[in-house]
Amino acid sequence: MNEEQLSNIRHSLAHVLAAAVRRIYGVKNVKLGIGPVIENGFYYDFDLGDIKISEDDLPKIEQEMQKIITEKQEFIGEEKSLDEAARWAKETEQPYKTELINDLKGEGATITFYTNGDFTDLCRGGHAANTSEIPADAFKLTKVAGAYWRGDEKNTMMQRIYGVAFATGVELEKYLKQQEEAKERDHRKLGRELDLFVISDMVGAGLPLFTPRGTVLREELARYSNELREHYGFKKVWTPHITKTALYEKSGHWAKFGGELFLVESQETDDKFAMKPMNCPHHTRIYASQARSYRDLPIRYLETTTDYRDEKSGELGGLSRVRALTQDDSHIFCRQDQIETEINILMNAVDQLYKTVGMKLRVRLSYRDDSDAYLGDVKLWESAQKQLKDAVVTAGLDFYEQEGEAAFYGPKIDFMATDAIGREHQLATAQLDFVQPERFELEYSTENGNIARPVMIHCALLGSIERFLSVYIEHTAGKFPIWCAPEQLRIITVNDNKNVVDFATKLNEAAFENGIRTTIDDSNNSIGKKIRVAETWKVPYSVVIGEKEVESGKLPLRIRADLVANNAAKHVYTSEEIIKSITNEARSRVSKSSL
Amino acid sequence: MNEEQLSNIRHSLAHVLAAAVRRIYGVKNVKLGIGPVIENGFYYDFDLGDIKISEDDLPKIEQEMQKIITEKQEFIGEEKSLDEAARWAKETEQPYKTELINDLKGEGATITFYTNGDFTDLCRGGHAANTSEIPADAFKLTKVAGAYWRGDEKNTMMQRIYGVAFATGVELEKYLKQQEEAKERDHRKLGRELDLFVISDMVGAGLPLFTPRGTVLREELARYSNELREHYGFKKVWTPHITKTALYEKSGHWAKFGGELFLVESQETDDKFAMKPMNCPHHTRIYASQARSYRDLPIRYLETTTDYRDEKSGELGGLSRVRALTQDDSHIFCRQDQIETEINILMNAVDQLYKTVGMKLRVRLSYRDDSDAYLGDVKLWESAQKQLKDAVVTAGLDFYEQEGEAAFYGPKIDFMATDAIGREHQLATAQLDFVQPERFELEYSTENGNIARPVMIHCALLGSIERFLSVYIEHTAGKFPIWCAPEQLRIITVNDNKNVVDFATKLNEAAFENGIRTTIDDSNNSIGKKIRVAETWKVPYSVVIGEKEVESGKLPLRIRADLVANNAAKHVYTSEEIIKSITNEARSRVSKSSL
Repeated sequence: MNEEQLSNIRHSLAHVLAAAVRRIYGVKNVKLGIGPVIENGFYYDFDLGDIKISEDDLPKIEQEMQKIITEKQEFIGEEKSLDEAARWAKETEQPYKTELINDLKGEGATITFYTNGDFTDLCRGGHAANTSEIPADAFKLTKVAGAYWRGDEKNTMMQRIYGVAFATGVELEKYLKQQEEAKERDHRKLGRELDLFVISDMVGAGLPLFTPRGTVLREELARYSNELREHYGFKKVWTPHITKTALYEKSGHWAKFGGELFLVESQETDDKFAMKPMNCPHHTRIYASQARSYRDLPIRYLETTTDYRDEKSGELGGLSRVRALTQDDSHIFCRQDQIETEINILMNAVDQLYKTVGMKLRVRLSYRDDSDAYLGDVKLWESAQKQLKDAVVTAGLDFYEQEGEAAFYGPKIDFMATDAIGREHQLATAQLDFVQPERFELEYSTENGNIARPVMIHCALLGSIERFLSVYIEHTAGKFPIWCAPEQLRIITVNDNKNVVDFATKLNEAAFENGIRTTIDDSNNSIGKKIRVAETWKVPYSVVIGEKEVESGKLPLRIRADLVANNAAKHVYTSEEIIKSITNEARSRVSKSSL
Repeated sequence: MNEEQLSNIRHSLAHVLAAAVRRIYGVKNVKLGIGPVIENGFYYDFDLGDIKISEDDLPKIEQEMQKIITEKQEFIGEEKSLDEAARWAKETEQPYKTELINDLKGEGATITFYTNGDFTDLCRGGHAANTSEIPADAFKLTKVAGAYWRGDEKNTMMQRIYGVAFATGVELEKYLKQQEEAKERDHRKLGRELDLFVISDMVGAGLPLFTPRGTVLREELARYSNELREHYGFKKVWTPHITKTALYEKSGHWAKFGGELFLVESQETDDKFAMKPMNCPHHTRIYASQARSYRDLPIRYLETTTDYRDEKSGELGGLSRVRALTQDDSHIFCRQDQIETEINILMNAVDQLYKTVGMKLRVRLSYRDDSDAYLGDVKLWESAQKQLKDAVVTAGLDFYEQEGEAAFYGPKIDFMATDAIGREHQLATAQLDFVQPERFELEYSTENGNIARPVMIHCALLGSIERFLSVYIEHTAGKFPIWCAPEQLRIITVNDNKNVVDFATKLNEAAFENGIRTTIDDSNNSIGKKIRVAETWKVPYSVVIGEKEVESGKLPLRIRADLVANNAAKHVYTSEEIIKSITNEARSRVSKSSL
């Protein structure tokens, strides 16, 4: 089954759902909204008056849908004039359909309708020929939720029934299992349980605050990304979070994205500012602050900094979509003949990072098409696209090409990373830009003493740290590897005897001085409880200290299950061995314990 | 001479200046503005019609002032009624004085006038008894500048003559020398020359961008401050730069400083935000996100983050006063009995940092007075003030106490640091806060199971990184110590022979891999020129590579003069020796070269 066929099945299922709801709750009681195809499935909106559908009712509705499928109803298309359509809606007492039909006035002479069994709906088409084509074991109703008619809170609240549907029952099972796992791993849930970040009403939606534990994750990820880039010659720069709107007018962002910026007002002066939504225009100001020669290029800037985008409140939750997004942003200013080398560098950095975090990469090469939607010289585009592809081929990465998917200012590479439960996320990116150097009149002097424009390359390895974290928390299910674990070692005391507490304190201090993130659990809880608590916090290493351990200096080490290497045998170590291992493991960012 | 006497001398000099100007330019031509005492001296504003005074005229005016001093003129006070005063101003044709007298109507029945020789001026008093009391060798006219009458650009532009004056000629000399040195060290000048930061019209005033070199300074300073605090148990947290105004309404900042905040407007929603001008309210949200027990305290958060304050454009220049200020901010939440220990920790951290940067510290203890301007329990204030003082005494720091200088929310310690040319700057600070825990209803459970309020301590070691840098660049005159020098080692090639270039490249790479900030000068300039350029950039170490060096592996090292230790003898080192030393010196933040 191809994408289009699957979409037709999902569309057909929306009709079947509506037909089933009408059969169960009575035709007269069901006022129909709309029923589109969505990612992985479909939904349908109903106004049922006082009748409330709960999730308990979904099996009953599914049963009725199964019946309709076995009835082998044909989908029959038909054209009606606008007047006929309006008459149909009135006769069938469907006020929402009337509204939709009225809105279509002036759009065309006719409207298509589809009928299966005794159920007719207006609809653009794209259906199975017959309900029997629907794989009966490959769909499921998943939930019911309130939804304002046409998304406007001034309108009636409809009841929306969601369903998922796939080509085969196996795929449905796989999807449901992934959903179940995803729920367990939900980063909002783990964020609370592992005390990683805090949402405060007084601060605002989409503006999470990071606790000490969450800040360790942010810092370690940022540090890693910075180190990788510095290794390849990037230099850190720093720019403020607000800027006069003039900067974005010059760059062209104002005309394109002005409505998505937070506006900042000075009360002391007439200055008009915006929160920066990206850093490229700022970085051009640093480039342009000195005369540059061909010998100076490439110039590579990195800035891991927080950008602000005015996302709608309704879309904000957890870290997936935030208004304060910290990008590990980089900009290269280079000559045209340097593009391939620079892309190679970026590919290496991206490749290394995603290997470390354990996500498989796939690359999308986005090119221009023949339309006039693209700025910059066509020859330059062609050469650049070839250099991008050559770099990707050299790196041996899995890739596919898409024409017409480039940004208007240049071709790009998007890196798609697959997480532990098989979901794909677009995180890292590398984009060529022929337009900003032109708009900002950036220059360098060539070997012959002429003036030329550099090419800009935008690149981020993590993307935004917040979004990366939302993926990474779920990818690891909160079991972070040693190098970025907020707590690396927990020291548990058996009792509060002085020699035990002293030993634990000394170990704690020695570990701390070696840069290990450690806590000590000297509470009055039982040993069993303390060990369980350490497990709940998913701490990589924990060690229990009692009289015996103080005496022998041999400490029984508990290693989180996913970190245990296959050849792990020994379980007792000295303080020094433990400290040395953790320090080395953190430094080399390995994924398994060496103990 | 005490402060008041010195102020009287300065005030008298303003009158003498006006009398001298009248003698030189003619009484009829001189319309008098005002002539107040300012820091280090005085000025007087004149409207001289078409006559323009230039700096070349200042010696002539000084000479006339000297004459008046030798004339031993007495300062004679006199009271006039408002009507008499107005008549005097009219008769002497002094329109600005008329305006001042009119403004005083209703303020009191009489105005005081002072006369010396044939010059009379209205004035509150505070003069020498006789011009002969003025130390004739201890004043100097410094500059002439335009100044709108009453600071309003709609008014006449007056000519303002500035002078400085001290108790003795020696002090004047010292001051003038300091000014001369300060000019040489001006951080705006050095910022350009050493390529540290950039001001862009398109970004805005008070919003400097930091180049790679300037960013090294920012990062190294921040890293040092972070390390010091982390050593004492502070944990990093992260909060966004914008927040709903509700947060600052709750904290009380909105009522007090609402007019100094940048306001942020969402275009997508009705949300009203402000740029955060400080981080304490955010940090209370993290504290309050969990139940806290007496066992958890003290909780110490650190966040080196950028705050935004809506400073007026006219006050912005360089890094001394900016709109984007990056604070090395910290907040401690502790029990009342923990204040002294926490202050001890902070004193240690501050002491260590200022020893490293080579600035002498003096401490001001700011207490409450008996007025009702202070919030919080008096007993708590008294105990806290005692704990602060005990900590300062224990640390053995030079200190003085000032009643009535506390913040309304608690007593504080201000650290005054003296720079290399004797100027004192208030940079680090530690402030107790009894009010925010109350307003945010912060709690912890006590040993007895009761609920108590923690005390908050606000603290910054550097203050704001931008302002600290403005001081530090001038303190060091751009000769940064090895640990924070933007460029630590410069490698200069004698020619472009392959073996020379290869050796230089290898050294460069080895140094880079050891974390040394290095550049290679393989330009076509002469060796002499290359060495001079390295000196201009104030690079701590530079090494010249030619055939001889490649052959012997012995490299002649040039060390910046201020870094040379007294026992420095040898000047030739291997690559390994150079790399090892620089790495160690940077890590231990020493002030001298060990080579």
